Order: sequence, then structure tokens, then C-alpha cells
Amino acid sequence: MTVTEVDLNADMGESYGAWVLGDDLALLDVVTSANVACGFHAGDPSTLVRTCRAAAQRGVVIGAQVGYRDLAGFGRRFIDVAPEDLYADVIYQIGALDAVARSQGTRVRYVKPHGALYNTVVHHAGQAAAVVRAVRDLDATLPLLGLADSALLAAAERVGIRTISEVFADRAYTAGGTLVPRREDGAVLHDPDEVAERAVAMVTTGEVLSQDGEDVQVDAESVCVHGDSPGAVAMATAVRAALEDAGVTLRPFVS
Amino acid sequence: MTVTEVDLNADMGESYGAWVLGDDLALLDVVTSANVACGFHAGDPSTLVRTCRAAAQRGVVIGAQVGYRDLAGFGRRFIDVAPEDLYADVIYQIGALDAVARSQGTRVRYVKPHGALYNTVVHHAGQAAAVVRAVRDLDATLPLLGLADSALLAAAERVGIRTISEVFADRAYTAGGTLVPRREDGAVLHDPDEVAERAVAMVTTGEVLSQDGEDVQVDAESVCVHGDSPGAVAMATAVRAALEDAGVTLRPFVS
Amino acid sequence: MTVTEVDLNADMGESYGAWVLGDDLALLDVVTSANVACGFHAGDPSTLVRTCRAAAQRGVVIGAQVGYRDLAGFGRRFIDVAPEDLYADVIYQIGALDAVARSQGTRVRYVKPHGALYNTVVHHAGQAAAVVRAVRDLDATLPLLGLADSALLAAAERVGIRTISEVFADRAYTAGGTLVPRREDGAVLHDPDEVAERAVAMVTTGEVLSQDGEDVQVDAESVCVHGDSPGAVAMATAVRAALEDAGVTLRPFVS
Amino acid sequence: MTVTEVDLNADMGESYGAWVLGDDLALLDVVTSANVACGFHAGDPSTLVRTCRAAAQRGVVIGAQVGYRDLAGFGRRFIDVAPEDLYADVIYQIGALDAVARSQGTRVRYVKPHGALYNTVVHHAGQAAAVVRAVRDLDATLPLLGLADSALLAAAERVGIRTISEVFADRAYTAGGTLVPRREDGAVLHDPDEVAERAVAMVTTGEVLSQDGEDVQVDAESVCVHGDSPGAVAMATAVRAALEDAGVTLRPFVS
Repeated sequence: MTVTEVDLNADMGESYGAWVLGDDLALLDVVTSANVACGFHAGDPSTLVRTCRAAAQRGVVIGAQVGYRDLAGFGRRFIDVAPEDLYADVIYQIGALDAVARSQGTRVRYVKPHGALYNTVVHHAGQAAAVVRAVRDLDATLPLLGLADSALLAAAERVGIRTISEVFADRAYTAGGTLVPRREDGAVLHDPDEVAERAVAMVTTGEVLSQDGEDVQVDAESVCVHGDSPGAVAMATAVRAALEDAGVTLRPFVS
Repeated sequence: MTVTEVDLNADMGESYGAWVLGDDLALLDVVTSANVACGFHAGDPSTLVRTCRAAAQRGVVIGAQVGYRDLAGFGRRFIDVAPEDLYADVIYQIGALDAVARSQGTRVRYVKPHGALYNTVVHHAGQAAAVVRAVRDLDATLPLLGLADSALLAAAERVGIRTISEVFADRAYTAGGTLVPRREDGAVLHDPDEVAERAVAMVTTGEVLSQDGEDVQVDAESVCVHGDSPGAVAMATAVRAALEDAGVTLRPFVS
Repeated sequence: MTVTEVDLNADMGESYGAWVLGDDLALLDVVTSANVACGFHAGDPSTLVRTCRAAAQRGVVIGAQVGYRDLAGFGRRFIDVAPEDLYADVIYQIGALDAVARSQGTRVRYVKPHGALYNTVVHHAGQAAAVVRAVRDLDATLPLLGLADSALLAAAERVGIRTISEVFADRAYTAGGTLVPRREDGAVLHDPDEVAERAVAMVTTGEVLSQDGEDVQVDAESVCVHGDSPGAVAMATAVRAALEDAGVTLRPFVS
Repeated sequence: MTVTEVDLNADMGESYGAWVLGDDLALLDVVTSANVACGFHAGDPSTLVRTCRAAAQRGVVIGAQVGYRDLAGFGRRFIDVAPEDLYADVIYQIGALDAVARSQGTRVRYVKPHGALYNTVVHHAGQAAAVVRAVRDLDATLPLLGLADSALLAAAERVGIRTISEVFADRAYTAGGTLVPRREDGAVLHDPDEVAERAVAMVTTGEVLSQDGEDVQVDAESVCVHGDSPGAVAMATAVRAALEDAGVTLRPFVS
């Protein structure tokens, strides 16, 4: 497989009022796509205005990072929301962020679930279908960014919504191609060189070494880097530099 | 003055989760414009979906009823929000409701501040300007519905945003043409016949009798009826019937 | 079994700001114990003040009805809260309500989980243990009101916290003695006479007829009646009258 | 005036879920009294547990830092809350924090308003009285910490509640003895040596040099240092060291 292009995405807009999280401005200089929070798990409207404005200035594509309504839990706790309520929550969030983006000269170009919702729609058919219905009823041209082989991407494909499969350069993979749960030792990689090397392997060969030492196939249309840890910007910068050194063009998946 | 048309507006979508407020379905059969809450003072997303769907089915025009972020206070308490934050809050709310409306086959066609924000932007230049800037930066074709001679409508006119002036058939007016504050005796009228009669006078003559018995000029492009009191639907129905009996056509101010 | 006394409990304080739910004043004239919301799923502080004051005036015992932090979902959706966070949430809620109660001349005398938390701690060992630890660390003399054979009551007993077992006169029971899930037909009974009759049977015989027509043993230290449905007060009144007619004394389980 | 003792207080517990603000553990090693947030402007329950536990371990006295219900605004925006609602909000917050404190082996020993509420109760008689009534009805032995000559302390004194007057070593004073508003140049001092020197002067002489170079009398029962700026711990440490060097004993105002 000869891949010459890939997208680089990270979470942003996750400050809230007086509380600052991540260094959005620095990260926007590195990524090609920004998953911007929509106010339910993080991101007060003023933060969203600043993040969208800075993204617009740099030509970074904005996606709506929709999540559970849970500020205290930062959207990281599963909530057993009824699908019809989740449907409404997702439409509300995309629309809120899209309006902010439009007021700053850009717009929402894709959707990516956040945190516990991201993990839930890998396997929860009801919530996955609710997210897909929300996108379909609001704007069926918006791609969904998620995990390959997830219930979410499967449901999206069934109704003709474009799907983008992402990989995590800083996460260990099982032999089955799924992510090793965070609570397990070795689940998250911290060495920038190792992470950058894995990103290059995933993108250029379509394979990554699993925790057990086996080659696993991955579908790397976008590489996700994390934005909220202390060394996040350095890590993202290392990944980008390594990809460029390997001859890969960094380019958003929507143009 | 010969007026043959007027708009009839009321607040809707103000339930929240398990809490029900008002009878939106009945009221939607009476009004021509629905000021739908946007989630900050009331209106969870599922309520907004239901309200927008019902409005779409009846051809009732939807406006975004933007308010302070204050569920516990129902948006009825002044908050000294910095204009730049209010700007972001207003864009966020309009966008959220517009997405819900679009997903149900309609869209937001105007903006009306709610509660304490409504009263504040009558005189508070900074907050009035913030609301106007929000509308201008998001969609300058959206009219603003408010009180004649308010700071809000003045600021809107200065930047070329269409303004719609509304009257309150169930509220007493001072000789100066302003509303008698709710806390004063006689500020709110409760007799449907009297209220209906005043509505007809306001619309057909452009005048209303003040608390002191003087004729006051009013500019009635829209008549506001209240939706959250026990007799709200009966009152709105009486107003509509009286206007129609007087030969006035009920028609939304946006087509 | 000869039971001559029983407690009658109902949920209260579940209004929120402008939104009114239930008729607390009427219900307080019927029950002996009031499960008062604590602000996380319902119950703004002003509502809690009014409810506690009215309970104090009538000598009704107040319990803290602790729930998930979820106003939009009214605490009816499972949230996968980490036990250490749930522990803190429960202490916070009990303390908040207890302060309100004390300011009105009474105090919190027991604890009862609400909604989805109630159902979760029937079987979820981690969350059940968190609730029990919270009560133990705050005030180990507070009894826990819940379902017999639940993980919650078992965990409470292990650390020496008093447990109170309640029955639901308006819910169908399985042959195994558990509640028929609400989503099934016939799960909730609506006829006041039938409900009252079942309450008497549960209290005086310790048995109730299951959905399949078998006698099931129940442990009825308290009878729960619901407060938020239209006929709630009438239903509670019927249950109380039938119990009194059967010679049962209505008395709170804490004195 | 020969003062040999003074209290040193700072705000704490102002993180919220994933968002961290301030370095509570370091600051707890410096101050004698901790104004701990109560969840309305900041401070999720788990944060409060950790902060109270750490305060208890160090013997630092805990006060309830009550504020407006405004996470997005961090309690820094005036809200026109009706006094009866503010009364309930204050009781709720004190009780919630007190329960957390008790569960960790300590308790709330005083009350201090936060942010915009702090500034409002300097002059707003209605809100000041509401805070005082709340403390009186909950526990009239709790002192109120605030600004000398404020409406709050005056109202507290009228009903026999103990008042503690605090000074700000890092804020400029007017000739009239009030704080120079933050928005003015020079309102906040940043040099640790200068701030420490002013703290010593305030405590040992009862005077401070105003912005205009005049000696102003101050009543320094407690010195407030700020906890949420980058150099906060260093500043607090410098103030404490200077006071100790000047022979002042640092001691909480409640024992």
C-alpha cells in the first residue's frame, strides 16, 4: 500500500470559563483537523469562538466533537441516554458549534464522538444509530470520524454517510486490532520517538505491531494525537515531522 | 393607520427533561410565530426537536429565544455577562436551535431575547450590542424581535438588521409607552375579553390606553401572548379570534 | 406475621426553579417519610427550603434522596460514575439537604437513592459500596432505605448501617420477588383500590401476589407511593386509608 | 497597635472534574485558613473531598467559600438572585461542604463569599442580608469573613454573628480604604517583596499606603493571598515568611 497523504487530528476547545485545558494555539499549528468540543463535556461558547477563529486563520478543518452532557465527568463516563435523546443532543451540539464556526468564517466539516460516547458507539448499536441519524437528518454530507469496524462507522455506511477511520499512534493495539484499554499497563505510549515511528508505520504500511508482537492491519485515514497532556504539543510535532520525513503529505480528509 | 395584518408570537419549548411547562401543541395552533427556547434558560434538545417538528407541521415560523445561562432562574435574573461572552452565548444558542429546526424540516427565522435578557437589552448598551453583533456575524438576514425604542432595536437598525416591534396585549402601559413593571398592581391583565379588545385596539388604531387613561402610541408589528400560565391557550385563542373578527389577518412577519 | 405499624414514603422536592413537579404540600399530609431530592437530579435550594419547612411543620421525617448529577435526565439514566466520585457526590448531597433541613428546624434522618441510582445499586457492587461508604463516613447512624436483597442493603448491613426494606404497592412483582420492569405491560398498577388492597396485604401478611399468581414474600418496613403522577395524592390517600382501616398504624421508621 | 497574630487565608478547591486550578496541596502548607469552594462556582465533590482531607491532615481551618451558581463564569459575574433564593443557595453550599469536611474528619468553621458575590455584598443590602440570614439560620456560631465596612459585616454584626475583617496584600487601596478596581492600572501588585512588605505593614501598623500615597487605616484580622495565579504559592510563601520575620504569629482566627 502506498499512502502519500494522511490527516492529523486532535481534540481542542476543551477549556471552560476560567479553566484552561490544552494549548490550542500551538496544536493548531501542527494538526490538519481540529475536533472542537461543543459545550456538553467541555467548551464554553467563548472558548469555541476563540478556537474556531484560530482554526480559521490557520486553515485547519473543524469537526464537531460531540459528547455526553457531563461537565463534571468531562464526558468520560458512560451515560445510558435514550437514543431519541442522544439524537437531539448530537444535533444540538453540531449546530451550536457550526454557528460559532460560521460566525468566524469557517464551518463544521465532520463529526467525531468524544470520550465515553466514542467508546460506547464502537459496540452500542442504539447509541451508534442515534448519532448517525442525527448527522443524516442535519447534514448527510458531514463525514463521521471514528474507529474502523465500529458500530458507528457501520451504521454510517449503511445510510451512505462517509466514514473516516482513524488510528492512535500513542496507544497499544491488541492482536485483534482493537485498542488496549487505558487501565492496562502499557496501554498508552509516552516516548515521542516510538509514537512517531508507529505513526509512520501505520500510515505507510497499513500495519502496526500489536502488544503481543504481531503485525495488525489498520486503516489510517487520519492519525489522532492527544492534546490535553503536558507533552502533547511536542508529541504531535514529533509525529508530524516523522510523517513528513517519510514523504507523507499532511492534508485534511475534507477539502 | 390601517393595519390589515399582524403577527402573533408566544414562547415555547420551555419544558426541560421531566419538567413540562406550557402546552406547546395547543399554542402552536393559535400563533403565527413561536419563540423557541434554546437550552440556556429552558428547553432540553429533545423538547426542542418535538417543538420544532410540531411547528414545522403547522407552518408556524420559528424564532430563537436566546437567554442567560440560568436553568435554576429560568433566565429571569439579570447576569452581568461580559459582552464578548454574551456574543458567543447568543451565537451558540441560535445555532443549536437552528440545527434542530433544520433536522425537522424548518429553520430559525428570527431572534428574540428572553426574560431578564429581554429587559436588560432595552437599556444596557453593551449587552444589546453583543446580541446584535452575534446576529450580524452569524446571519445578518435574521430579524430581531423586541421592544420599540429599545437599545436592542436601535443597535440593530444601526447595522442594518431588520427589527420587529412587538406589543403586549395583557400588560399595562405607562403614559410614556413603556410596560408597567410586573411587581406593580395591575401590571398584568387577566380578563381574556379585555386583553383581546386591547390587542385589537393596538393593531387597528396603533394606540393603547395607558394605566393613567391616556392614549399611547404603540408600534404593533407583532402581538405577544404568554404561554406558560394556566389560561394561556384560552387567552391566545381569544386574542386571535378578536383580531380576526376585526378583519385583521394573522400572518408571520417573515414569509 | 402480625405487623401493626408501617412507614409510608414518597418522593418530594422535585421541582426546579420555574418547573413544578408533584404536589408536595398535599402529599406531606399523607406520608410519614419524605424522600427529598438533593439538587442533583431535581430540587433547587429554594424548593428544598419550602419542602423541608412544610415537612417540619407536619412532623414528617426527611430522608435524602440522592441521585446522579443529571438534571436533563431527572436522574433516570445510568451513569457509570467512578465509585470514588459517587462517594463524594453522595456526601455532598446529603450534607446540602441536611443543612437546609436544619435551617428549617429539622434534619435528614435517612438516605434513599433515586431513580437510576436506586436501580443500579440493586446489583452494582461498586456503586452500592460507594453509597454505603459515604453514609458511613458522614453519619453511620443514618439508615438506608432500599430494596430487600439488594447489593446496597447487603453492603450496608456488612458495615453495621441500619437498613429499611420497602415495597411498592403500585408495581407488579415477579415470582422471584423482584419488580417487573416498567417497560413491560402491567408493570405499574393504576387502580387505587387494587393498589391499596395490595399495600394492606403486603404489610399485614408479608406476601403479595406475583404477576404469575404466586404468593411472594416481601419485607414491608415501608411502603413507597409515587408522587409525580396526576393521581398521586389520591393514590397515596387511598393506600393510607386502607392501611388504617386494616388496623395498621402509620409511623415513620425513625423516631 | 501591637498585633502579634494574624490569619492567612486563600481560595482552594477550585478545580472541577478534569480541570485543575491552583496548587492546593502546596498552598495548604502556607495558609492557616482555606476558603474552599462549594460547587456552585467551582469545586466538584471529589475535589472537595481531596481538599478537605489535605486541610484536615495539616490542621488548616476550612471555610465555606459560597458563590453564585455560575460554573461558566466562575462566580465572577453579578447575578441578580432574589434574596430568598440566595438564602437557600448559601445554606445548601455550606451544608454540602460541611458534610464533605466532616467525612474527612474536620468541619466548616467560617463562611466567606466568593467573587462577584463578595463584591456585591459590600454594598447590596438585600443580598448581604440573605447571606447573613442563611448563616444565622444554619449555624449562628460561624463567623463571616469579609471586607471591613461592608454591608455584609454590618448586617452580621446586627444579628450577633462574629465578623472577621480581611486585607489584601496584593491589591492597591484608595485613599478611602477601598480596593482599587481590578480593571484599573496598578490595581494588582505582582512583586512578592512589595506584597510581603505591605502585608507586614498592614498587620503590624494597621495602615497601608494608598494609591495616592496616603496612609490608610485597615483592620487586618486576616490577610488574603490569591491561589489561582502562576506565582501564587511563591507569593503566599513570601508573605508568610515576611510576617514571621516581623515577629507575627500566623494563626487561624478560629481555634
